[in-house]
Order: sequence, then C-alpha cells, then structure tokens
Amino acid sequence: MSSATGAGDGDGSAGAGGSAPTAASVANRLGNAPSFAEMWRELLPLGRDSRSGGYRRFAWGGADAECREWFREQVEGRGLAYEVDRNGNQWGWLGDPEAGDAVVTGSHLDSVPDGGAFDGPLGVVSALAALDELRDRGARFGRPLAVVNFGDEEGARFGLACVGSRLTAGQLGVEDAHRLTDADGVSLPRAMEAAGYDPDAIGADPERLARIGAFVELHVEQGRALDLSGDAVGIASAIWPHGRWRFDFRGEANHAGTTRLADRHDPMLSYAETVLAARREAELAGAVATFGKIAVEPNGVNAVPSLVRGWLDSRAADQATLDTVVTGIERAAREYAAAHGIDLDVVRESFTPVVEFDHALRDELGRILGRDTDLTVPVLGTGAGHDAGILSGRVPTAMLFVRNPTGVSHSPAESAGEDDCLAGVRALADVLEGLACR
Amino acid sequence: MSSATGAGDGDGSAGAGGSAPTAASVANRLGNAPSFAEMWRELLPLGRDSRSGGYRRFAWGGADAECREWFREQVEGRGLAYEVDRNGNQWGWLGDPEAGDAVVTGSHLDSVPDGGAFDGPLGVVSALAALDELRDRGARFGRPLAVVNFGDEEGARFGLACVGSRLTAGQLGVEDAHRLTDADGVSLPRAMEAAGYDPDAIGADPERLARIGAFVELHVEQGRALDLSGDAVGIASAIWPHGRWRFDFRGEANHAGTTRLADRHDPMLSYAETVLAARREAELAGAVATFGKIAVEPNGVNAVPSLVRGWLDSRAADQATLDTVVTGIERAAREYAAAHGIDLDVVRESFTPVVEFDHALRDELGRILGRDTDLTVPVLGTGAGHDAGILSGRVPTAMLFVRNPTGVSHSPAESAGEDDCLAGVRALADVLEGLACR
Repeated sequence: MSSATGAGDGDGSAGAGGSAPTAASVANRLGNAPSFAEMWRELLPLGRDSRSGGYRRFAWGGADAECREWFREQVEGRGLAYEVDRNGNQWGWLGDPEAGDAVVTGSHLDSVPDGGAFDGPLGVVSALAALDELRDRGARFGRPLAVVNFGDEEGARFGLACVGSRLTAGQLGVEDAHRLTDADGVSLPRAMEAAGYDPDAIGADPERLARIGAFVELHVEQGRALDLSGDAVGIASAIWPHGRWRFDFRGEANHAGTTRLADRHDPMLSYAETVLAARREAELAGAVATFGKIAVEPNGVNAVPSLVRGWLDSRAADQATLDTVVTGIERAAREYAAAHGIDLDVVRESFTPVVEFDHALRDELGRILGRDTDLTVPVLGTGAGHDAGILSGRVPTAMLFVRNPTGVSHSPAESAGEDDCLAGVRALADVLEGLACR
Repeated sequence: MSSATGAGDGDGSAGAGGSAPTAASVANRLGNAPSFAEMWRELLPLGRDSRSGGYRRFAWGGADAECREWFREQVEGRGLAYEVDRNGNQWGWLGDPEAGDAVVTGSHLDSVPDGGAFDGPLGVVSALAALDELRDRGARFGRPLAVVNFGDEEGARFGLACVGSRLTAGQLGVEDAHRLTDADGVSLPRAMEAAGYDPDAIGADPERLARIGAFVELHVEQGRALDLSGDAVGIASAIWPHGRWRFDFRGEANHAGTTRLADRHDPMLSYAETVLAARREAELAGAVATFGKIAVEPNGVNAVPSLVRGWLDSRAADQATLDTVVTGIERAAREYAAAHGIDLDVVRESFTPVVEFDHALRDELGRILGRDTDLTVPVLGTGAGHDAGILSGRVPTAMLFVRNPTGVSHSPAESAGEDDCLAGVRALADVLEGLACR
C-alpha cells in the first residue's frame, strides 16, 4: 500500500496544511470507499422526476443540495480535505493544496431540466473512482491531486452556463452575477444565501487557479463519434464556439375568436417562421441552431399573444461559420417581423469563443492512453460547453469522452454502458497517474 | 318613485319569498347605489397586473374572490335578494325568483390572462346600472328581474370556457368538471372548496333555468363592426361555431449543441410549420385560427425539446367551413410530423356549435331599441363564445354589443368610450323595461 498523499517525498505524510488528511487516515478509510457502481446507485434517485424519468437538479435547489451533500460525504469519507471555494464549487484535496502544480479532475452534478444521469455526474463519480483505483494500484503522487464539483454548470436555473467556473476564472463579473434571476424572480445571490452560501464572497479566484497545473474533465460523449469509430474513450480537441440569443417578438394581444386575421399583429407567426429559418441556415452551414425554449404572453388558448420570446442556441466549428448562421437567422427574423407589424429585439445572452484545449496536455494524454496498446485514441471536437472550456483560458486543460451509444444527451435516454464507464475510470486513473506520479 | 319589486300587482310589496326585499327597502337603498362610473372605478384595481396593466382574475382565485365579494355588496346594497347557485354563479333578484318568466341580465367578472377591463365586467356593471336607471325612471315590473355574475367564463384557469353556465345548462357533466385541473394540478373541486363553495353540489340546474323567460347579456364588442358602422350599440345575431384542439408533438429530447441536425426529432419544427399552416388555412376559408398557448418540455435553451404542445383555437361562420379549416391544419401537421419522425396527437378539448340567438327575442330587441329613432340597430355575428351562447339552448337569449373603437379585446388595450358605455346602459334599461314592464 502506497502513501496516498504527500509531495513525492516518500515519507507518507500529508504534504502540508492542517486540514489535509494524513496518509495513514487515507489508507485506513480506503476500504470503506464505495465502488463506482455503488456511488452511481446512490446518485440515481436524487432529483429524478418520476414522470419523465429525467433529472431536475437545478443550481442551489433541493436536489442540487442533496447531490452536493453526497459529494461532501464522498470526499470526507475518503479522508480527502474538503473545501468549498468562494463561488460554491466543492473540492476534495489529496496532498497539499498550497504546494501548487496540482492535477485536478471532476465535473458537475447539476442537470438541465429532465436531463440524463450521465452529463456531469459521470465525470464526478469517475474522478472519485479513479482516485480509488490509483490507491488500489499503490500509486505514489508527485503532485497534489484534487476532485472538484463545479456549481451551476448547466445554467438551467439562471440561464447562464458554467457560472461556478466562470466566476472563478473571472469570465463572469460579480455585478453581472448578482443580476442573474431565475424564472420565479429569485436572484442568484438570494438563491446561494438560501442554500447556505455567502453571495458577497463570490468573484474571481486567481490564487486558486494558480495552484492548478492541469485540469482533466471526463464527460459522457454527447454525440455518436465514438460509437461510429468503435472506441470506448476519446480525447477532446476543441469546443465549438457557441452562444445563446434571445429573440423577443412583440405584437398585440387580442381575442383569437373575433380579431380579423388582417387586423392582427401575431408574434407567433414571426416566431414560427424564424424557427424554420434557423434550421435552414444551420443546415446550409453544417452548423447547429435550435429554438428549444419559449415564453409566451399571455399564453391563453383564446388570445393572440402580445409577446413570443424564443431562445436560439447556435454552434459551429469555427467563428466565421457561426457568424454567418446567426446573422442569417436574425436577418430572416427581421423580415418576418416587419411583414406582420411585429417589434423584434435580439439580445445575445451569452457567447463562448472556440476553445482549443492545451495541445501539449492533449498530446500527453494521447501518449499515456496509447502506451499499452498500438491504438491511437480518437481526438474529437464537440459542440457542448464545459467547465473545462472555461478553465482552459487560465489552466492547461484536457477532456476525456466516454462512448454514448445513442449519442443522445440532455435527455433521460442519455446512456453509457457499464464496461465503457469502467474503461473511462481506468483511462482517467491512467492519466492522473501519468501526470501526477511522474 | 315606483315600486321596484312586485309582480305587477301594484301593491308595492315583494312578490314572495322571505329573502326578497320589500319595495320600501329597495326604494330606501336606491339613493346609496353607486353610479356606473363609481362602480367602474371600484372594479378597476381588482386583479390588475401592475406590469402588463392587464387583468388576472382567474376562477376561484384571490382577484376573482374580490370581484365576487364586490358583486355581492352591490346586490345587497341595492336591496336585491342575493343567491349563489349550486355552480357558484351569483344572482341578485328583484321580485320573486319563484314566479317564473324572469328577465335576467349580466355577464362575468373573471378574465383571460392579462385581459382587458371590459370583457365581462361591462355587462355586469351595466346590468346593475340599468336597474338603477329603471328605478330612476319609475319603471313598474310585470316580471321578476335578476342580475347574474357567471363563474369561470373565460376558462383561463381550467382550460374550458363558460364552466358556470355549462354546468347549469347540463352541457358539462359533473364527472368531467371534477376532472378539470389547473396548471398547478389543482382540481376544480379543490379550487371551489378553497374558495368556500361546495364542489359536491355542482351540476345541472333545470329548475333555475325554468324560472328564466329571457336572458340578455351586454358585452363589449370584440371586433370593429360597430366602429365601422358608426353605431354605439348593436344586437347579436349568432355566435360562430368554435373549438379548441390540443396538438401534442412528441420528439426526442437531446443536446442542442452536439446532436447532428440529421439525428434530431425536434418537435418545435413541426409545431412551427403547423402554426403557419393554420394561418394559411384560415385565410383561404375566411375563418380564424390561432396558436396562442404553448407548453414545451423540457424548455431549456440548450435542449432539443421532447414535447411541444400547442393549442389551436379556430372559428368560422358555419360548421362546414370550420371543419374544412381544422381538417386542413391537422392534415398538414401530420405530414410535417411524419417528415421529422415526430408523434402527433390531436385532441379536441372543447367545441361549441353555431349559436343562433332566439329570433323572436332578437327582433323584439330591435323593435324596442328602434322605437325612439328611425335607425335600424345593427345586427352582427361574433366569433367569441359567451354564457349567453351556452344558455341559448335552454332559454330565449339575446346579446347587446357596445362599440370598441380599436376592436382589440383580451388585452389591456381593450376599450370602450364612456358615452358608448352609458348608451349601452340606456339600451339595456330600455330592453329590460320593454321586456319586463309589458
């Protein structure tokens, strides 16, 4: 049995810091750590909607709090040093957090509305299981290790994704964060406060980022590339540039039974035309564009709406293509709106430029994972945003993807086979060992 | 000062019934009855949304309860006998309710979401003001008179219009009514119970209908016919046949950033195509068709929806035209759905056949209102449903419309000029006097 902490000095003691566990305590507790399958079973019921079978783990709400409490227990149960940073992200440290050049892995536990079980939790559970695997292997670490659960990755509640990592990386200002509100008008600060966190503490955290030498996030693949190539695990190359735009079509509320068609200013018509234009523009450009969220006022069966608000999500392999798509959609929307006497406002609510993951780290992952085989591990781009994408501007960052046979995600049908999940854990353990034990 | 009650026997006593007021008490209280303008001002703030300026008076909720309490006070303040029937409709009687052949007038006080001030309340306030006017004129009544406030006319909360009058007329069965639920899952019986009414009492009320010799509902016009003809008041000919259909487009929830367009089953696309098809079909047929209410699951910005549920409201001058329109829309929707791999269910949630108002009563209204002028009062059809339409199958029924300069209704922009409103009160008083004092 190896020392599970320490800075590679071989004495088996915790590196430093009063809260860091001793090597002995880690070793003693190891036997009690639940397996991947046990952890997975514990998480499965939390925040699951009985009707849809999907998850509703929204930032700072009840199901999210249960998941966070579960994470804390896992960290403490393994004898890791538990920390919550100023932005509510949860950390578990093995070795001295202050030593620097740490290798960090993890993901998030929150979900989109009616999301699947894997997007986020697979990366967190695999991170914990990879640590267990490394201890079983008797690995000795030359760098501090940490597992992390980032807060509010999906943006399901406040409309902005990756709030926890954005704040930490300084990509989201404190004032802007304080202005975020959910559908019930509850602000982010009030929601954090209600969950027991101090909203006045939030903000950029460069000292914390400076401790991290590498961040590796494991994630279920959200497409079918690995299924088509026949691989269980792949490495991310880049995240496509993507953004969210809000289209507000304002017309005139009126009685649906008595108002002549010619007298109407019905914003639903312009909205419908714009939905179809978005599909056409995305198809032409080889990009994606989606209207998946809508809010209608007054939303009555017998009322011509006064307002139809639709949110466009669009992504493409490069910036120029994305610009072409979104400009085309907006131009079409303005023509339709003008034809129906509708006022149109288009607001870009968020935007993330293309993220190229650190090439040196990516190549190192490829070498580590290819070491025992002659195979080349596939390297693939993705249209999904991740905390890894946010951190990549500040820290060498990489991602591993685990095969998703259907390619479905953000849905209860999201899946990954048990063998593939365990292959992901082994790959992540290999990567952590290769990086931290050198 | 005339007797304000009695069955035309000239003795000034209440016709019968312990709860009916005496003529003296009615006369004494008359001086305190607020004017049309005063009543209007009292109602204006109840249930008004400060942001939209529209009304949110939903059946059995807080604002509706305030309006109902206001109505009770108006009835009792005038010395009328106050009653709530088994379906929660409120009545104020002048004369003996049991005498039969009563002339009844009134409308409703609930609203659509963000509705205007006039749709419903104009008919209730005008009914009370017309009674005051008749007393001022010293009118003597040969028939009992009543004012009524029907419950849940707009169907904003439970999705079915005219619940109060439908139940009374036996057009809505008790079991069906008990199955109605609002958006929060609260059933109609529970909502009525919470508002202090007995849901076990609801059901058809033929004895009550048998007492009514004529029902006349005054309503703000929900179109521009009177504005175009230059008349303050008109008489209804018929209510167009109309119905509500729910279109459930079921696809597959998926990640909006990572799912290839070709792999998607996005129900928003079929919905959008159907919205545009509805407009085309209605235009071709000279009918109206509207998708004004939508519910999307999961309704996340970065999620391809699993379900888009849209409600179609369609109306036409005759049944054959309406059938053509709705059949055409459904056929188009099924083609679009099939093309995208979407399951489509279409459910007719409600339907009301064409309502021809009682020809004899309509002609009598025309004679009464034309008596003092050489003008012919315009007679017009309408696409809007009303309690008068429901009752017309059981009771001779007529409607008066008051000019709406913009034609807008179901919106805060709904309006009627003060002079036109007062002309409406005089016309209604003329009609009541002509019918009840003969």
